[in-house]
Amino acid sequence: MSKANDPKLKSWVSVSKDSDFPIQNLPFGIFETSYLNIRVGVAIGEYIIDLDYLLVNDFFKDIELPNDVFTSTYLNDFIALGKSTTNAVRERLSEILQEDNEVLRDSEEMRERALIPMEDATMHMPVKVGDYTDFYSSIEHATNVGTMFRDPDNALLPNWRHLPVGYHGRASTIIPSGIPVQRPLGQTKAPDADKPSFGPSKRMDFELEMAFITGKPTKMGDSVDVNEATDHIFGMVVFNDWSARDIQVWEYQPLGPFLAKSFASSISPWVVTIEALEPFRVAQPQQEPEVLPYLKFEGNHNFDINLEVDITPEDGKPKTVCHSNFKHMYWSVNQQLAHQTVNGCSINVGDMYASGTISGPTEDSYGSMLELAWKGTRPVKLDDGSERVFLLDGDTVTMRGWSEKDGVRIGFGEVTSKILPAREDQ
Amino acid sequence: MSKANDPKLKSWVSVSKDSDFPIQNLPFGIFETSYLNIRVGVAIGEYIIDLDYLLVNDFFKDIELPNDVFTSTYLNDFIALGKSTTNAVRERLSEILQEDNEVLRDSEEMRERALIPMEDATMHMPVKVGDYTDFYSSIEHATNVGTMFRDPDNALLPNWRHLPVGYHGRASTIIPSGIPVQRPLGQTKAPDADKPSFGPSKRMDFELEMAFITGKPTKMGDSVDVNEATDHIFGMVVFNDWSARDIQVWEYQPLGPFLAKSFASSISPWVVTIEALEPFRVAQPQQEPEVLPYLKFEGNHNFDINLEVDITPEDGKPKTVCHSNFKHMYWSVNQQLAHQTVNGCSINVGDMYASGTISGPTEDSYGSMLELAWKGTRPVKLDDGSERVFLLDGDTVTMRGWSEKDGVRIGFGEVTSKILPAREDQ
Repeated sequence: MSKANDPKLKSWVSVSKDSDFPIQNLPFGIFETSYLNIRVGVAIGEYIIDLDYLLVNDFFKDIELPNDVFTSTYLNDFIALGKSTTNAVRERLSEILQEDNEVLRDSEEMRERALIPMEDATMHMPVKVGDYTDFYSSIEHATNVGTMFRDPDNALLPNWRHLPVGYHGRASTIIPSGIPVQRPLGQTKAPDADKPSFGPSKRMDFELEMAFITGKPTKMGDSVDVNEATDHIFGMVVFNDWSARDIQVWEYQPLGPFLAKSFASSISPWVVTIEALEPFRVAQPQQEPEVLPYLKFEGNHNFDINLEVDITPEDGKPKTVCHSNFKHMYWSVNQQLAHQTVNGCSINVGDMYASGTISGPTEDSYGSMLELAWKGTRPVKLDDGSERVFLLDGDTVTMRGWSEKDGVRIGFGEVTSKILPAREDQ
Repeated sequence: MSKANDPKLKSWVSVSKDSDFPIQNLPFGIFETSYLNIRVGVAIGEYIIDLDYLLVNDFFKDIELPNDVFTSTYLNDFIALGKSTTNAVRERLSEILQEDNEVLRDSEEMRERALIPMEDATMHMPVKVGDYTDFYSSIEHATNVGTMFRDPDNALLPNWRHLPVGYHGRASTIIPSGIPVQRPLGQTKAPDADKPSFGPSKRMDFELEMAFITGKPTKMGDSVDVNEATDHIFGMVVFNDWSARDIQVWEYQPLGPFLAKSFASSISPWVVTIEALEPFRVAQPQQEPEVLPYLKFEGNHNFDINLEVDITPEDGKPKTVCHSNFKHMYWSVNQQLAHQTVNGCSINVGDMYASGTISGPTEDSYGSMLELAWKGTRPVKLDDGSERVFLLDGDTVTMRGWSEKDGVRIGFGEVTSKILPAREDQ
C-alpha cells in the first residue's frame, strides 16, 4: 500500500476532523476561479492545490509531465499518463504537504499561490466522459424493484445472479454537483388510460450510485481480467442517476431505459483515487450460485463507503432520507469491468461506470424514492412536515460518501443539485 | 435546393454511370495514404479530393476556415463550423469540379496533387462519436421480432406506435468499413439448460441500418423541434449493427441489449450530406394512431435509399441476401431527433443515431439473418451451395446504399467487414 495512505501522516495544512480531504485522500478535480483559468487541482482540507503552479515551480521535477497537463479542461490527459505517473504525483503531493516538509509550508508567497480556498472555486466536470455504462448490481435494489413491479416470489430475473446486468447511458448529460436539473418533459401513460399523454414527469426520483472512471484503455478485441481490473480504474465519484419513473415504465420495453434517464446524471466533482480507497477494501456478499470462470475473483474488491442522501425542500432544512453503504454491492467493480470487456468491447480513459442504485438490507438504506416510499405507499416525511413519494420542484438532493478507519476519513465531498420546474414551451 | 444538386451538372473528373460519387454527391470522409497524413477528403468518381491542398491553394478564399481544419483526424471540427460553412465548401467544390471550370482541370500539377486515387487511400472513422443511439424504427422489423419471440397477434408492444423506441449503445467500438470483426465471447443459456455457459457466440448476425450524424449541438434542457431537426443533421452513413443473438436473449432483461451489441458496429466511411439527399425525400408510412404533438410533422422526412446486403463466404462469391429501402422507416430521422431531445437531453457534433434494422414488407427485404432465416427455420442458400442461419467465421458482410433519380445516383459506397474466429484465451 502507498506510503501516502499511512494513517499517521499529518499535514501542515489544517484539516478538521470531519473533513473529507485529509492528506491521505488527495482527490483530483477540475476547478476555476475568478483569477485562475480552468485547471487541475487536488483537495486538502478547505483548500485546492493548484498543480500547475507546483509544476511550474519544479515540485514535480523528476516526474515526466507535459507542460500543459495541469491546465487541461479535463483530467483525461493526466490520467492517460498511467498509474506510475499519477501515483507518483499523489505521493509527491503527500510529501510536500506533510507537517515536517518546510518547502511550501514556510514560503508564504508560494503557499498563497499554491493553495486556493475552496470557497473561491467553481468545480467542473473532472473528465470528458467517453462511454457511460450503468450497472444494476445491488441485489437489494433489484429485489425491491422486482418485488414491486413483477413477482415477490421471483423478484430477480433468471440472469441476475449470473452476470452484472448493465446498459449504456447518455454521456452528454453527466454534469457536476451544483448545476440544477430541470424536470423532464416526456410521454407517459397511466395504466388505466387509453393512450399516452405528454407533460412534465410526475415521478421524478434520484438513484444513489457510485461510479468508477477508467484510466487505462484496452484495444477492441481485448478483455480485462477480473483480477487485474483495478489496474484500469483511476478512481471513483458519487453518482446521482436522476430518473423519471413514469417515463421509464412506458418506454423501457423491450430495449431498456432511455429518456427516463438521459435528461441528467450528477456527479461529485472530486475523483478519489482507487489507491486512496485501498485501506477500505472489504469482502463482497457471497455469490450463489457460483459464477462463470471469467467472473471468479480472488481478494476483496468491495469498498466500505458510507453513503447518505438528503432532501432539502425549498427554503427548508435538509433531511437525511437514506443511509447506505457501497459494501452491499453484489457485483464488484472488478466483475463489472471484466464483464463489460469480455466480448472484446474496448474501453477508454474517462469512461464512466455507475454501480446502479445502492440499496442496503434495511428500509432506511434504500437508494431511491421509489423504494423508500415503496411505490408511493409509505410517504417519506421531511422536517417541515411535508411528505414526499417522489421529488418536487425546488427540492435539493444531496448525496455524500465517505470511508472511515484508524481515525482517517476519506470522503468524496458531495453531489448536490436542485430540481427546477419543467420547460414551459409545451 | 442547392445548385450543387442539379442533375444536369457534369464534372471534368470522369465518373462512371454506376459510381456512387458523381458531382452531385460530394460526401466527406477522413483518409490517409502512404504519402499523405490523415486528413479530410471528398469523394468524386474514383478519386478523393484533398481539401487541405485546395485550402492552402486559396480555392476556398472567401469561406472562413481555420488553417488546420482539413488536417484534423476527424470531421468534427469542420462540421462544428455550421451548415453555412460546410454547404459553402460543398458548393465551391461543385463549381471547381464542373466540366467548364478550367482552374484545376487544366493544371496537371495541381490536379495530380488535389485528386488522390481511392486505391491509394485508407479510410478512417469520419467522426469522433460522442454518444450513440440505436433506434428500432422499422415496423416490419419490430413486427417480425415480436412475432418470432412473443406473440404474432400482439407483435408490437403497446408503446411502439407512440414513440420511436431506442436505447443508448457503445460508441467506443464503432469502426469504419474494412476492419474485421472478431466473433464475441459471452454468456449464453440454452432454453433447456440449467445454467448459462461461456464461449463464442453461436448466433452472430448483422443488422442493416443507416445512421445520421448530428452537426449542430443543443444545450442541456433544450429540445429540437421535429420540423427543424434537419438543421441539426450533417449527414448519413450505412451502419451494420453486429449482433450476437444468443448473448442478447440471455442478457437483455430488463435493461436492454448490452454485450450482444457492444463488441462492434461498422459504418461506411463517406458521410453523405443531408443536402445531397434532398432530391430523394419521400413520404413516410401513414402513422396510426395519431402521434403526440411533439412528434407531428410537416413535409417529407423519409428518403428513398436502396439498400443491399451481401454475404461472401471465405474464398467464395458474394450473394445478395437482402434488398431493402430506407423509405420503409415508420419513424423518420426528424421524429427520432425530436424524441431524443424532448426531455432536454443535449446533443453534440458527431453523435450518431442509427435507425434500427431496416426491414421491408417482403421476405427478401428483411435486414437481419434472424429474420431472413426466420429464427433458423428457413436457411439462406449461398452460391457455393452452403447454407446460413447465422454468420460463420470467414464470412464477409457487405452493405450498400444508394439513391437514384433523373439519371443521378447518390451512393454511400459500402460497409464491408469479415468475421474472424473468437479469441482463444478462454
